[in-house]
Amino acid sequence: MDIEDFFNSDCPGREVLDHITSRWGVLVLVALKDGPLRFHQLRDRIGGISEKMLSQNLRVLGRDGLIDRFVEPTTPPKVTYSLTPLGRQAVAHLCGLVEWIARSAKDIATAQEQHDLRS
Amino acid sequence: MDIEDFFNSDCPGREVLDHITSRWGVLVLVALKDGPLRFHQLRDRIGGISEKMLSQNLRVLGRDGLIDRFVEPTTPPKVTYSLTPLGRQAVAHLCGLVEWIARSAKDIATAQEQHDLRS
Repeated sequence: MDIEDFFNSDCPGREVLDHITSRWGVLVLVALKDGPLRFHQLRDRIGGISEKMLSQNLRVLGRDGLIDRFVEPTTPPKVTYSLTPLGRQAVAHLCGLVEWIARSAKDIATAQEQHDLRS
Repeated sequence: MDIEDFFNSDCPGREVLDHITSRWGVLVLVALKDGPLRFHQLRDRIGGISEKMLSQNLRVLGRDGLIDRFVEPTTPPKVTYSLTPLGRQAVAHLCGLVEWIARSAKDIATAQEQHDLRS
């Protein structure tokens, strides 16, 4: 598979791209960059995420092999989520993109203002 | 703005992140990496995109200052789309991510199969 394949509507990579680049997928992965977190820590860290969306994203990204789920056999069980080695590679690319947006925020806002003045 | 701001639900960078990482946003930007294209060329290159979604993404990414629209005053007018310098920076990050998914497709598929066998 290479980058050209993504232009075919039946490319299986498109599904993974959707998981990784979905609004919440990006933030769940990036939130784990500094180490493992428990469910409620992730929920509190990612402003605006619902428990339903968090569960769904953890499940999908877990199935893709990007996030590990570790259950400590306590009562009640403690569940911790962390990046797998594959997940850490994905996050390196996502952090590059998010940091670029942060650095470019002023240029993008200026472009938006100029566009809105013209139209 | 830095990467931590993206965890606040009112961070303006989240909106731009959504534009750039949307299913069609990624593919429209990456499709322009090798040079300008006309509307119908973009539509034909990006398998599965509707004219409505293509128009909408070109408009949004144009407003963000990532894509330029050039109209040649012919009859009928020829409209060409290209990346701005800002757009080329965004695409560099997106290509890195898409190429990583392409390289990791086998590992991700293996993880998915193992997950499905366990559940």
